[in-house]
This record gives sequence, C-alpha cells and structure tokens, in this order.
Amino acid sequence: MRIFRTVRAMTAWSASLHREGVVIGLVPTMGALHAGHRALIRTARLSCDALVVSLFVNPPQFGLREDFSRYPRRFRSDAGLCRAEGVDVLFVPTGDEMYPPGFATSVAVQSLSRRWEGARRPGHFEGVATIVAKLCSLVRPEIAFLGQKDFQQAVLVRRLLEDLNLGARVVVCPTVRDDDGLALSSRNQYLTPAQRRAAPVLYAGLKAAQAAVRAGVRSASRITRIMRDRIATEPLARVEYLSVCDPHTLEPLSRVTRGAVLLGAIRLGRVRLIDNLLIRGDQ
Amino acid sequence: MRIFRTVRAMTAWSASLHREGVVIGLVPTMGALHAGHRALIRTARLSCDALVVSLFVNPPQFGLREDFSRYPRRFRSDAGLCRAEGVDVLFVPTGDEMYPPGFATSVAVQSLSRRWEGARRPGHFEGVATIVAKLCSLVRPEIAFLGQKDFQQAVLVRRLLEDLNLGARVVVCPTVRDDDGLALSSRNQYLTPAQRRAAPVLYAGLKAAQAAVRAGVRSASRITRIMRDRIATEPLARVEYLSVCDPHTLEPLSRVTRGAVLLGAIRLGRVRLIDNLLIRGDQ
Repeated sequence: MRIFRTVRAMTAWSASLHREGVVIGLVPTMGALHAGHRALIRTARLSCDALVVSLFVNPPQFGLREDFSRYPRRFRSDAGLCRAEGVDVLFVPTGDEMYPPGFATSVAVQSLSRRWEGARRPGHFEGVATIVAKLCSLVRPEIAFLGQKDFQQAVLVRRLLEDLNLGARVVVCPTVRDDDGLALSSRNQYLTPAQRRAAPVLYAGLKAAQAAVRAGVRSASRITRIMRDRIATEPLARVEYLSVCDPHTLEPLSRVTRGAVLLGAIRLGRVRLIDNLLIRGDQ
Repeated sequence: MRIFRTVRAMTAWSASLHREGVVIGLVPTMGALHAGHRALIRTARLSCDALVVSLFVNPPQFGLREDFSRYPRRFRSDAGLCRAEGVDVLFVPTGDEMYPPGFATSVAVQSLSRRWEGARRPGHFEGVATIVAKLCSLVRPEIAFLGQKDFQQAVLVRRLLEDLNLGARVVVCPTVRDDDGLALSSRNQYLTPAQRRAAPVLYAGLKAAQAAVRAGVRSASRITRIMRDRIATEPLARVEYLSVCDPHTLEPLSRVTRGAVLLGAIRLGRVRLIDNLLIRGDQ
C-alpha cells in the first residue's frame, strides 16, 4: 500500500492510472476507521481496479463549538486496517496541502444543505461539498463510496458530483450497527457508559416507525409521533429532529405513499447521534 | 472540427484523449466571437495537442436586469471562425445539458468576488465560477485560456482551478483593441455611434495613469484622480469605479511600489465597459 501525503503525488498516480483505463474507487474518510468503514472498503475493493482511501479531518466541516480538535486520530491503526483490506493508496494530506495560503473557494449544494443537519450545523455541508469536490477532482474516481448513516451527506454528494460533472457516481453502503442497533460512528466513543446504554433508542424509534408503516400508517405526523414517543422512553435522550422525507429532495412528506426516509438526530449530553431508515409505503 | 452538444459526447471524447496522454486546451466563451477570441484560440492552438472551444451563454452569470436575452448569438459565424482556426471540438451545450432539473450546486471564490465587478453584478462571479468548474471537470484541459480584458475573472478562475484541484492552469492573453484603443468586447455592438466615439476614453484614462506612474507618481489616490480627470473630459461617460489594485488579491493599494493593476469600469448610456492595465512602480 502506498501512502501519499501531497496533492502532487496523489494526482500523478491517478493520472498515470487513468492513462491505462483503470477504474479508481474512492472511500473518503476522516479516519478513526471502524467496521462501517471496513464494509465500505470491502464493497469498493470488489468493484474497482484501484482503491484509494482518503483520511483527512476536514476543518471547514466542523462548527466553531464542535469537536475538530478532539476528533479521534489513530493513523497507525487506520493504516493497518487499510493495508489488511487491500487498499492501494492511502491519501493523508496535511491541512496546508488541501487549504494552502490564499485558499478562497467554497462549494454549496443549496437546496440540500438547508434542512436537518445543515440547519443545526451551519457551514457543515459547504465544508463537506468543498472537500469532496477537491478529492474527486484530484483522485478522479469513477465511484465514491459513502455510508448510509450520513444519509443527507450521501444525497448531497451525489447531487454535487453530477452538478459539477466530476465524472464520479456515488454508491451508498448500508449502515453497520452494533448488536443493540446503534449505528457505528467514530463519535460513539465520546459516550459515557450510561449514554452508550441509552443510545440505541434512536434506532428503536426508527424501527417502531417502520413497523407502523408496514402496519398501514401513512400520515407523516403520526409516524413522527411514534418515533418521538419511543425515544421519549429514554430520559437521557433529547430529540433534535425527527422527520419523514422524500429520499431524493429531503423535503418533508405529509404522507408516505412510495419511498421515504426517516431521519433522526438526538443528543445524549453533549454528543449528537444521527441515524436513518429507508421505508416504503406501497408494499 | 467536431461539434458536441451533449455532456456525454464531450466527456467521452475528453476521456479517450486523456488515455492517450494528449494535452487538451480550453477556450471558454459565450460566443459572438471577435478578434480577441481569435487571438486566444491562436495562442491555445500553438500550445496544445487538442483544442476545445466552448460556446455557452451562461444564464447564472447575468443579473436580472442584464442582457442575457439580447446577448448576441451568432452560431454560424462562430463555428466558421473556429473551423478556420483549426479548433478540434466546438462544445455547444444546451441550458438543460449544463443545468438539468434539480441542479443545486454553486461555486464561489469568496475574497475575489466581493469587489469591483462583483460589487456591481451580484451573483455574476458565482455564475462564472460554477460554469468554469463544470467545463474544466468535463473537458479536463491542462490549460484554460482567458482574456486579460476580464482581469478580475481571470484572477478568480486561476484561484478556483487551483483551489478545487481541477488540474488546469490559466494562461491570460493580452487584450485586443480597436485602432482607437477600445478593448474588443461582444458588448461593444450595443453602443450608438456617439457612444462608440466616446468609448476609447476609458483606455485613454488608463494610459494617462500609466504615463504618470512612469513619470514617478506613486500615490494611488493621485493616480486614480488622473484617470478620473481624463475620463471626465468625455461628457457621455459615467465612471462606475477606477482603482489601483494588487494584481493577485485585487485589494486596493495606497501606493504603487511594485506590480499593480489599474481597473476601470464606465457606463455609456446603458452599456457598461470595463478595461484594465498592468503597471509597475519599480521601473
């Protein structure tokens, strides 16, 4: 496995592979890799000739009061996981490589970054869109692999890559969960033991709503109420938002007639958790 | 010469050339080609293996009260000029090809788009940055050729391509002028005969300032006054802005010690004209 720390090395490798017609896959990450990332890497490994994992904790996508400085950094174990999974290139640029002095450009996907996570985390999605545009410009992958856990991010990146003609499509891989249903996240390690025991309530709320839809409930407000009531059984959890949305536009639905996505965010103390579930109203 | 009207055809051609290691040059235009464009195309033709000219009147870079609908469209003569100059591909996408339903992404180069043209034309440079990012993503040129007449645009595009790692560098070609000094522009045809006779006063003002700098004047306010006084001799001309700026950041200078750019915009009736001149204070 090669480890590139400069844009120049990364682009030179990518350009030489493009001349050979090689299909490049990209798994963009912020490191602190867990089994969810491993699943992404394995899916990517099976469908691409050459596989790049990027590892960059991207300052602009963190808010002023967020956890940029304490975000977990574990380069050696991350590199070990990538090597074991057959990754060809680990791209680990410095901040100055990605944002040199004078950097001034930002990318926004207006309609998809206003709601939900975007409303709670001002600037977050501009940070995501800008770094993804940069990574896809310099790696030139045919496929970018993203996890379903960050559903809004995946929808936004799909739109971004298409809108800017970056030549990459998005493959979304299913969320990987602990045995009790909690979606894996690098931020789960911030949870105290008591918060950790409470954390699966978000997924339990989504599953309760899914069961109701399967039993015939169609009203989005009733479905949201079912999620809210289930999460209210856990005194440590505070709901940030719960919604029933169109899975492409992320606009709220009033009724579930075909495909929809349940989106939820809760807070346990100072830790935010997000999760989601795709449902169908026509089955 | 091939004429491509779809993104798919354009990218397929570009990808196939990249596999052969061909150096692609791009001259992005809005059509209505004049001798200034011809000079760009000739410069590009000499330094690239394959040459693409794009021709797209880009709606987002026009303000609500601007001239999008009446902007000159002369496809047949434009195509004839390109063919005569040995262009390989004329890329003429439709609006729907570039901005399909659901399009939601915009690109901004914050620090460089606030002042001068950006202050007078809200949204203009976001429109420019977005279309240039798209064109460079899908054509994948190694060099984009831009005219010096739109100096702020050239500085902004250089920053944009570097910031988004689009793999293209900018070559700026000198402004082409009529015999009386008026910079060529597709918008000059909007001028009445009287306005056309008055129009060279902007360049005359820039030249007067340049002569003063050569004679030892260093104060930016004195240099600006010299431009303003010269332009005031023409009763039809109304100054929009005149400035002495750093040629990289476009921030105003107080004194000219090394390189600087004189930027100017005037209005003749409803027609806006811009022009600029690079000067040096250390010679």
